[in-house]
Amino acid sequence: MSEQATQRRTRGGGGAARRAERSAVSFETAKFIERNIPNFEILTEEALEIIETNAETVLEEVGVNFVNNPGALALWREAGADVQGERVRIPRGLARQLCQTAPSQFTQYARNPARNVEIGGKNLVLAPVYGPPFVHDVKGGRRYATMDDFNNFVKLGYMSKWLHHSGGTVCEPTDVPVNKRHLDMLLAHMTLSDKPFMGSVTEPSRAQDSVDMCEILFGKEFVQNNTVMTSLININSPMTFDDVMMGSLEVYARNNQAAIISPFIVGGAMAPVSVAGTLTQVMAEVLAGIAYSQLVRKGAPVIFGAFVTSIDMNSGAPTFGTPEAAHITYGAGQLARRMGLPYRSAGSFCGSKLPDAQAAYETSNSLNMGLLSGVNFMLHACGWLEGGLVSSYEKFVMDADQLGALHHLARGIAVDENAQAMDAIREVGPGGHYLGCAHTQANFKSAFWRSELLDYKPFETWAEEGSRDTMALASARVDKLLGDYVQPAMDPAIAEALNAYVTQKKASMPDAFL
Amino acid sequence: MSEQATQRRTRGGGGAARRAERSAVSFETAKFIERNIPNFEILTEEALEIIETNAETVLEEVGVNFVNNPGALALWREAGADVQGERVRIPRGLARQLCQTAPSQFTQYARNPARNVEIGGKNLVLAPVYGPPFVHDVKGGRRYATMDDFNNFVKLGYMSKWLHHSGGTVCEPTDVPVNKRHLDMLLAHMTLSDKPFMGSVTEPSRAQDSVDMCEILFGKEFVQNNTVMTSLININSPMTFDDVMMGSLEVYARNNQAAIISPFIVGGAMAPVSVAGTLTQVMAEVLAGIAYSQLVRKGAPVIFGAFVTSIDMNSGAPTFGTPEAAHITYGAGQLARRMGLPYRSAGSFCGSKLPDAQAAYETSNSLNMGLLSGVNFMLHACGWLEGGLVSSYEKFVMDADQLGALHHLARGIAVDENAQAMDAIREVGPGGHYLGCAHTQANFKSAFWRSELLDYKPFETWAEEGSRDTMALASARVDKLLGDYVQPAMDPAIAEALNAYVTQKKASMPDAFL
Repeated sequence: MSEQATQRRTRGGGGAARRAERSAVSFETAKFIERNIPNFEILTEEALEIIETNAETVLEEVGVNFVNNPGALALWREAGADVQGERVRIPRGLARQLCQTAPSQFTQYARNPARNVEIGGKNLVLAPVYGPPFVHDVKGGRRYATMDDFNNFVKLGYMSKWLHHSGGTVCEPTDVPVNKRHLDMLLAHMTLSDKPFMGSVTEPSRAQDSVDMCEILFGKEFVQNNTVMTSLININSPMTFDDVMMGSLEVYARNNQAAIISPFIVGGAMAPVSVAGTLTQVMAEVLAGIAYSQLVRKGAPVIFGAFVTSIDMNSGAPTFGTPEAAHITYGAGQLARRMGLPYRSAGSFCGSKLPDAQAAYETSNSLNMGLLSGVNFMLHACGWLEGGLVSSYEKFVMDADQLGALHHLARGIAVDENAQAMDAIREVGPGGHYLGCAHTQANFKSAFWRSELLDYKPFETWAEEGSRDTMALASARVDKLLGDYVQPAMDPAIAEALNAYVTQKKASMPDAFL
Repeated sequence: MSEQATQRRTRGGGGAARRAERSAVSFETAKFIERNIPNFEILTEEALEIIETNAETVLEEVGVNFVNNPGALALWREAGADVQGERVRIPRGLARQLCQTAPSQFTQYARNPARNVEIGGKNLVLAPVYGPPFVHDVKGGRRYATMDDFNNFVKLGYMSKWLHHSGGTVCEPTDVPVNKRHLDMLLAHMTLSDKPFMGSVTEPSRAQDSVDMCEILFGKEFVQNNTVMTSLININSPMTFDDVMMGSLEVYARNNQAAIISPFIVGGAMAPVSVAGTLTQVMAEVLAGIAYSQLVRKGAPVIFGAFVTSIDMNSGAPTFGTPEAAHITYGAGQLARRMGLPYRSAGSFCGSKLPDAQAAYETSNSLNMGLLSGVNFMLHACGWLEGGLVSSYEKFVMDADQLGALHHLARGIAVDENAQAMDAIREVGPGGHYLGCAHTQANFKSAFWRSELLDYKPFETWAEEGSRDTMALASARVDKLLGDYVQPAMDPAIAEALNAYVTQKKASMPDAFL
């Protein structure tokens, strides 16, 4: 079956296009954002040079650890690094030089070609929350996530107009054995959505399964020549590259699949308690990680990642949407652009336990800075709750709605003759009103972004309808989207081959829950 | 009494300083924000020139109306404008030239000199919500505002660390006659707070009362030589300057008191449905308004105002925190800076009926763009609800807490040796942690902004404490702040003189409720 699917795909992209055409019901997805606004450049040239110089000093003097990974140490030694035990000290300039073979922009292909995304440049691709072991909704409260929840979040992502990417671990399906759940998760992304997605990184063998399944979905040759997955490789900050993550990175890089090389930092705990110090460490870690990806395969697509937040020094809890996180996100964006690499940061971050005002303040702070800091790939763009412990149904649709505002912001300001509206100003004159004028009639439909969720009704109408808060409106929208969901069409032979792969793989291993 | 107070004040600022010193309890207020970050420049030079040229064309060809105001028409005619009936057409370049005498920055004095604010330049002064006829809190719901509410909001403003300004009509005290309530409102700002405040603009005679009361508080000569009020003069868009607002502006300008000259625009209704068209109209209106202030008195302190939001074309309701409002706010900031004038825009805007997630998304969008657009005076910085119909107790303290994040964001990123933290990175090394290192110990207290309201606790603790959402936390904080409130000390002679003025003025008029 896999063989048949492969043959079908290797005839070219036409098959995917034809399959998309056959889909009876199609849900609108906005094109990835192409920014027509400047980035916010918070650091001066001088400050950037200090941080870059210090990062090289860290790599040269302190170095990084590649744990349990003799192959990586050999590659580094061969490239000219000073390797002592697991410590790799990288001479000034070497990491940056190695990074030069990484592409500045790449296409991630989706099975529906209309959903392909361009990662890098002025583009911004939005993907949902990643990783929470719990889910929350108004009806059921907070509980461990299951595969049913996972499928629901994939469906919600497919139905969300402003979301370009299906993501990866939209929640952890804790009812499926740890060593098998990646198979079900991949199958869900591949069959319940036609948007691009992420692969597994929890074991190198699971990364390989991800590649194998993509070869069924896209065809073997297509996968070797094109990027069909963007996966999340976290650095174990400070400056530690563990064998599980690096093993997965190696699988993806060898197969030409993209990886986000991303420190995961709570400032004050895993990095210095200052912004400049944290940026220095981020820069050093990403330099080392991306350089390593290019040692594995020159030209492997990668993303400069920065997941950095601050800590509440009273309780030790990570805090989100804070000004220090904004500083780091803006600054890291500048560092990524100076390296000519796609940039990943920001998201719907919040520490709140509920999708309430705290959640929205924190999230909105982060989404806005994400757009202005030049992020190219925004993971966690919707649905994140409680410091990433929880995927929230309601917050998923609330945030996803706000992503529409980012699209409109990014358009910038038109100043063509129609936008100048001089005829309208002349027509209306002092004391008049614009509601009925010709320019308004011609332009009002597309002029303003309109939320599909928030309440714009007069108080009296709103009160008559039950005085619903945003959470209640979002709960109704979750039900509506899941109710309206129609699975995108797929070649039955490919679906069968994917199912057969998953069934066979699962049968080949005993269940493991750790 | 007034005379005694005057003599005391005219001996210099020492009296105010001594009075402040005598105050037994002092509540911390942050200094106004001095930005150490760049502004976000969304429009290109070319786009700015188009808008500026078009604004001059509007003034020259279409003109503006000065309604019911023969004195204004005479001043315009004398200055070289083409006056036909109430229509004033202003030759290209004239308005801009007249605006040149307006100061680019000015000090607004408070009775406590530690609370003086600098308006203009890189500074940002934050003032609370202005104008709502209703109030809302969790306990009492939505209801007409009273003088008790007004006093409470002044007290909350005084107790809010990140709020620099006491504002003006923090809510409309509907239980006091319309023609007398300005007296009670001014008395509240003057006696319950020691932060700077705004004067009345609802009748020229009430503006004069505001000046008279300030002369009691600050001394007559001090008021004539210094700005002690910043008041809100709205333009009746499109391009209409009514006699009530202009009459109040005339009183303030003649007395050297500051005015925000601000269009109040719902885009698509009072201005074209395009951003560039709206910016053109804003520019034309502000040019005409500020030019007029300088015709009344050269050098009168003014602020380039832009209250602009979008409209929901389905319902006709104004919408807040939208991307189009952001475009206009960013663009108008550039226009104001090119004129060398202080800029007023943004605020805690939202359309929501409750201080819920919608309110917070919309508000956070607006607060963030306000900071980055270079706003110098942000009215409505906290407490706005339901499109400005409601002053919300809970949202007041929620937003006021978020204003702390703006202060920290505006600090920018330090790159001195301590901030570089190279010793910390060397000390900790790969795989270590920073919580105990010397650099963290030395810096953690001031490193990160910390909310005084939001919940950072673990889920279990939060659940044990009653699973409170942000609204519930805010309600408790309102009670705490009002409970802790202590009135700032005031010279009893001045207090007596102010009370006597208010009593005498009230007795001199019959009540009017329209």
